[in-house]
Amino acid sequence: MDDQERHKRTLVGPIERFDQINEMFKRARFDPEWIDRSQPFYTLDRARDKHGFTHEYHALVNASWYVEDHLAMGIFGSNLEGLYSWESLIPDMEEVGLAKRIDLSSPAEATKKVKRAARFFGASLVGVCELDERWLYSQVVNTKTGDHYPLEFPPDCRYAITMAVEMDYALMQASPTAAAGPATGLGYSKMAFIAGLLAQFIRGLGYKAIPSGNDTALSIPIAVEAGLGELGRNGLLITEDYGPRVRICKVFTDMPLVSDKPRFFGVEEFCRVCMKCAEDCPSQAIPYGEKSTQVPTRSNSPGVHKWTIDPEQCFKFWISNQMECSNCIRVCPFNQEKGWIHDLVRYFVKRAPFLDRLFLRAHDALGYGKQLDPSAIWDQ
Amino acid sequence: MDDQERHKRTLVGPIERFDQINEMFKRARFDPEWIDRSQPFYTLDRARDKHGFTHEYHALVNASWYVEDHLAMGIFGSNLEGLYSWESLIPDMEEVGLAKRIDLSSPAEATKKVKRAARFFGASLVGVCELDERWLYSQVVNTKTGDHYPLEFPPDCRYAITMAVEMDYALMQASPTAAAGPATGLGYSKMAFIAGLLAQFIRGLGYKAIPSGNDTALSIPIAVEAGLGELGRNGLLITEDYGPRVRICKVFTDMPLVSDKPRFFGVEEFCRVCMKCAEDCPSQAIPYGEKSTQVPTRSNSPGVHKWTIDPEQCFKFWISNQMECSNCIRVCPFNQEKGWIHDLVRYFVKRAPFLDRLFLRAHDALGYGKQLDPSAIWDQ
Repeated sequence: MDDQERHKRTLVGPIERFDQINEMFKRARFDPEWIDRSQPFYTLDRARDKHGFTHEYHALVNASWYVEDHLAMGIFGSNLEGLYSWESLIPDMEEVGLAKRIDLSSPAEATKKVKRAARFFGASLVGVCELDERWLYSQVVNTKTGDHYPLEFPPDCRYAITMAVEMDYALMQASPTAAAGPATGLGYSKMAFIAGLLAQFIRGLGYKAIPSGNDTALSIPIAVEAGLGELGRNGLLITEDYGPRVRICKVFTDMPLVSDKPRFFGVEEFCRVCMKCAEDCPSQAIPYGEKSTQVPTRSNSPGVHKWTIDPEQCFKFWISNQMECSNCIRVCPFNQEKGWIHDLVRYFVKRAPFLDRLFLRAHDALGYGKQLDPSAIWDQ
Repeated sequence: MDDQERHKRTLVGPIERFDQINEMFKRARFDPEWIDRSQPFYTLDRARDKHGFTHEYHALVNASWYVEDHLAMGIFGSNLEGLYSWESLIPDMEEVGLAKRIDLSSPAEATKKVKRAARFFGASLVGVCELDERWLYSQVVNTKTGDHYPLEFPPDCRYAITMAVEMDYALMQASPTAAAGPATGLGYSKMAFIAGLLAQFIRGLGYKAIPSGNDTALSIPIAVEAGLGELGRNGLLITEDYGPRVRICKVFTDMPLVSDKPRFFGVEEFCRVCMKCAEDCPSQAIPYGEKSTQVPTRSNSPGVHKWTIDPEQCFKFWISNQMECSNCIRVCPFNQEKGWIHDLVRYFVKRAPFLDRLFLRAHDALGYGKQLDPSAIWDQ
């Protein structure tokens, strides 16, 4: 069974398009059960007199989100702007000659150029797949106005270019304190920067391009289908080079491209014996058991055979923590910096799953994944 | 004579504040002698049927400038916006508790945090100096309206945090074709991203912060005084790690910081025997002779003992090339990628200038600085 086939078998179905209003962060704003209790998380001034949560960390958190929050808005509902605008910020590209459909000779050649541009703009990983429309949101919500309406997506944008953006290793080790928050925020700001520029490049070549953050479609299944990684126990995309320490953005286009394929490199086997994320999850939102097609809440998408976290439990901790938690990224053994030793381990994880328990013990013995003292982030 | 003293002696004087309208790119728009002849450079559709100048390269160039051109505007006159706004895009930071002047214990501690944040946001190098007001523009120009008026700069913003942003090595090797253009454009977009976020971090700590690209003040002398590098024969800042392959942005602030000092590491001695930039300059705008305090055009700033290029000659080539030229970056022997061999050479360049000619011959023999075929940029 090849990897493509193996992936297809996980899509047991039925899979229905997900309504964005059921996404946990939208429920926090629109679900009467969650609006009030979510307030501590959305309070602007979240600094408090607790080590790792004082004002200086929050100043860094807020600055790191600056581009996403004020020049993009990809994590908000459908109120996309700036770098995530569906149209170029140059309104008349075609008339002034900035957009021309030139002969790119072949989809393979076009794919090479688009991938090179994505890397150049800052993507850590890039892959391509044909867009499975089941991953598009059925309905979207505008968080500013509260409007909730069917997604109108151009059906000719059949290709998705998916990019993973590495988050800072050192800062992430300080999770769940506010010292890790900037790693997440900067990831979001970089997503907007990279997706915005790549979309603009493709528009320049005379094609439609829709840059996307967490809006419009589910990122993880698209990233899996573009070969960027496997879905792990922690419900996150696990990439081979960075583990789950990435954010995902994408650009949808009508430019004909050559698809990559899903790839399996030992994550499923490893996650089966490794319970680190489940053990270190402050809200115990990560399953210890086997994969399933069942889901615990309406903020999950059913029909895929996978490990499914409980986003309600997860978000409850974020609220009490008044900060994102990334423990399931921090402690994941796939979250490693590059280097030949880790490359060697990756080699064996892919080919010799019977060694997984050994690697797991080594991971513990070497102290990887331990929480960093928040104040140490200033010294690196 | 220490480096600080050595730097001071280059400031022979008299040094008068520079009027931005004399800057070459402002003359291209406002000096009657230059407006018409500059048009080929400022034409939006500059693609043409010449290897390395076709539409696909220009699409990449235009995309790489996207953040600078549409969400920042730091190379335009005084019409700063978005990431280069002097005020935060969050208008009421103080009222909502996002800006608080907390106890940072000491200027040394504040400097450490600010430098760490700059690196985290993406700066390749960062240094601090007290702002010498002579580097501030006397007058600025709004390129949209044509208004030309005295710069009003808050006198309490006495400190300058200067950041160097590395430009892509491979693409830069394709200078002077349009395949090198994206390296420059992306440098500008990253400058805006980094300076914008750093300014926002400092505002969060309750201080004023003015992010700046090529606006407001001369970048190179400030970068020299912050210890980022020496001024080379090519009129550019030469950094120890990247040579001249950097762009410079800065943030001015009233936050008390600890200054770095100018540093000399063998550039002057090396440039004296090396004529590569002068030889490979298509417009012969770089001097072969000795340093001087005299300047050839009104687009230069007199009074500093330095090598001074002729920006009129330089820009004439840009116009005929319909693209920036970076040959003096490409061929500079200080433009090297990191690695232990180059680190070793840097060690000797700093301490044993009698070896400079030897290194120069090795540089040639190894083929460094040769022009890359433009189409090769897609393969990296």
